[in-house]
Amino acid sequence: MKGIYEILRTKRDGGELTPEEIRWLVAGVVSGEIPEYQTSAFLMASVIRGLSIAETTALTEAMRDSGDSWDLSDLAPVLDKHSTGGVGDKVTLVLAPLVAAAGARVGMMSGRGLGHTGGTLDKLAAIPGFRTDLDLPRVRKALEEVGAALFAQTDTVAPADRTLYALRDVTATVESLSLIVASILSKKLASGTTGIVFDIKTGNGAFLKTIEESRALGRALVDTSRAAGRKASGRITDMSRPLGRAVGNALEAEESIRVLRNEGPDRIREICLVLGADMLAFAEPPLAQGVARARLEEAFTSGEAARTFERLIEFQGGDPRVVEDPGRLPQPRERIPAVSQTAGYVTEIATERMGFLSIDIGCGRRKREDTIDPAAGFLVEKTLGDRVEAGEPLAFLCLGDRPAPRAKMERELAALFTIGDRPPEIADLIREQL
Amino acid sequence: MKGIYEILRTKRDGGELTPEEIRWLVAGVVSGEIPEYQTSAFLMASVIRGLSIAETTALTEAMRDSGDSWDLSDLAPVLDKHSTGGVGDKVTLVLAPLVAAAGARVGMMSGRGLGHTGGTLDKLAAIPGFRTDLDLPRVRKALEEVGAALFAQTDTVAPADRTLYALRDVTATVESLSLIVASILSKKLASGTTGIVFDIKTGNGAFLKTIEESRALGRALVDTSRAAGRKASGRITDMSRPLGRAVGNALEAEESIRVLRNEGPDRIREICLVLGADMLAFAEPPLAQGVARARLEEAFTSGEAARTFERLIEFQGGDPRVVEDPGRLPQPRERIPAVSQTAGYVTEIATERMGFLSIDIGCGRRKREDTIDPAAGFLVEKTLGDRVEAGEPLAFLCLGDRPAPRAKMERELAALFTIGDRPPEIADLIREQL
Repeated sequence: MKGIYEILRTKRDGGELTPEEIRWLVAGVVSGEIPEYQTSAFLMASVIRGLSIAETTALTEAMRDSGDSWDLSDLAPVLDKHSTGGVGDKVTLVLAPLVAAAGARVGMMSGRGLGHTGGTLDKLAAIPGFRTDLDLPRVRKALEEVGAALFAQTDTVAPADRTLYALRDVTATVESLSLIVASILSKKLASGTTGIVFDIKTGNGAFLKTIEESRALGRALVDTSRAAGRKASGRITDMSRPLGRAVGNALEAEESIRVLRNEGPDRIREICLVLGADMLAFAEPPLAQGVARARLEEAFTSGEAARTFERLIEFQGGDPRVVEDPGRLPQPRERIPAVSQTAGYVTEIATERMGFLSIDIGCGRRKREDTIDPAAGFLVEKTLGDRVEAGEPLAFLCLGDRPAPRAKMERELAALFTIGDRPPEIADLIREQL
Repeated sequence: MKGIYEILRTKRDGGELTPEEIRWLVAGVVSGEIPEYQTSAFLMASVIRGLSIAETTALTEAMRDSGDSWDLSDLAPVLDKHSTGGVGDKVTLVLAPLVAAAGARVGMMSGRGLGHTGGTLDKLAAIPGFRTDLDLPRVRKALEEVGAALFAQTDTVAPADRTLYALRDVTATVESLSLIVASILSKKLASGTTGIVFDIKTGNGAFLKTIEESRALGRALVDTSRAAGRKASGRITDMSRPLGRAVGNALEAEESIRVLRNEGPDRIREICLVLGADMLAFAEPPLAQGVARARLEEAFTSGEAARTFERLIEFQGGDPRVVEDPGRLPQPRERIPAVSQTAGYVTEIATERMGFLSIDIGCGRRKREDTIDPAAGFLVEKTLGDRVEAGEPLAFLCLGDRPAPRAKMERELAALFTIGDRPPEIADLIREQL
């Protein structure tokens, strides 16, 4: 087998490494035997030359195997969904109980927010008492008793990913399809789920702004998951506006509950029906799209989806009464309208900037030590294509306990909306199936 | 100006850096403010993406300016020659006194041997008492009084090159035309010479085995030198056999003296006439090729070249009597013939392997701490195209004070020669002018 010098030379010259070489490399990175200057040279060569699906799979598996890996095979199938991240993306909160209510087991390992996007763990933490620090026995019990578990990635999962990510972050080697895929999947695969549906967000509120980039990432995620022995499929979905009305942790938890109670905005309901049916295709026995969708609709209308969420919340230490009475969630002290200066149609919403603005008022963290204001957020009143009159609110600025420069925030919030003379072209919610 | 992250991103994506950015980068590398893992990412991106002539020039100048730089402008023109290295390459020892004897000033900063090639400093050190650790005042005085100075690169010259080279050596980023050029020229330009002639060796005894690679390196060296404000030209010359008969330090010093005394092998004499005339094109006033060549021939035949070497040796602390009596150089204890097993023509000489073999018997260093045996070496009896009978010596193994496994060495030396039925095609000594 090649040593590190030959591995670097091979990758530098565009050659392909063997799985054994990649495993040896990752082991050396984690043990510290391979110094950072050689690792960063490998990362740079990989970004420029790219990695094949075989190399990406080997890298993913080696990174996964660098830490704890959960074996849930006796409970299989255990289904999972992964989103590449967006603004107002509360799909996990609805989808997990919904698909469990339809009879499948759902285990989702979630992370904190990244960049301008909110984190599922922070949204769950807005439910009083809710805990996501489950260990393997608790996750197993939740899957058996509730049919769903929502839990945090721990420090013992894929430590190689943390080491590599820290180095990528300072060596301009973040923007690599293969390295992004390996980073995402090394953690996903560690959770022991057997079927994964990818929700690849595209548009001005997603990390990938174009459909071409989204397609490439989605294909690589699906192909690598399959090469690693998992069932996998994916959808490219629209993120050219926040998903639903609510942006902010308690606000999104409340909106999720409304959807589970069959009262929610159509777009969230629709994306959950589509992704849920995709997940049920990996159930045992697999369900055809039409059958799966009907069963999910039934779970909404029968109230079983909402009841499953109650059981999930209760199992994970939270107050299940929030489902019956969302007023028990942290409430904003003030709701300040951000009004339109002109009349017309909403032709564009600066979605990524809305995500960053939400972090400014306490919905997320800039630094690891920052604390979250669970009640803070925005409620979008007018969305793409809506007619608005001068003086009408475009959105509400919801403030919690934290002081904020209101007038400035209100102005900035309103400025995220572009008002034009004619309604814009509206992208389909579900853009493509991968 | 961009920070390190943006610089890495630009190079990663194939963009061009500004001279200011490159200067800032090199300053940070030398000061330690830029950590090794970022430097190695830069090196890898540079190897894969390449550097433009403008970037290479900026890198060269920034590396040069990281240490001492000598100003010899009041003595201008001061001429220099740089060889990319080969086996038996004693050109500097002949060329410096020869060109000085023709009326120009010659200052050459030399290094130790690299890989399989011998070092000029070691060849000079075979002359009893000869010192190459000249400081700037001594070099100036030598240029004024003798017309030539041969001196060692010091630790204070281009420290950035040492830092970068150490990292390149362990990150598979050595093989980059631009980085090789910057490494060579950062040291060359620090010596303050105003005109440089490059001798680009090509063939199985050179670092670059093909004419195409040699041409690319030669062009980059010449272009970058010119961009840095020096006069420069180059020749691609043959290194598919040792240059001359002698390989080894004292043996090569003696052979150089024979050439200076107008007694030497034709190929060394010829290459010195060609490169010397190229150098004199940068003298003041510049000499046309024909005039320059005639003047150099005259320096050989009049004895002025040999006398200049005597003065040079004397000025630099050595025993000038070696020119009159080369027997004063360290002599081998034994000369052991390595004989041919078969009759035929010499069709190939494994020149690089001959270089490595010479190091094994004490002509060079494997490690920095190794000592040199000045008397050791080879004398080539039969060269490319020569007829040889079975039992005739192909070369002599010359052993100094150091014990060596003679029978094995003799066998290995003979094995470097390929004997065939027909004479081979012989490459021209001067392959191309750049």
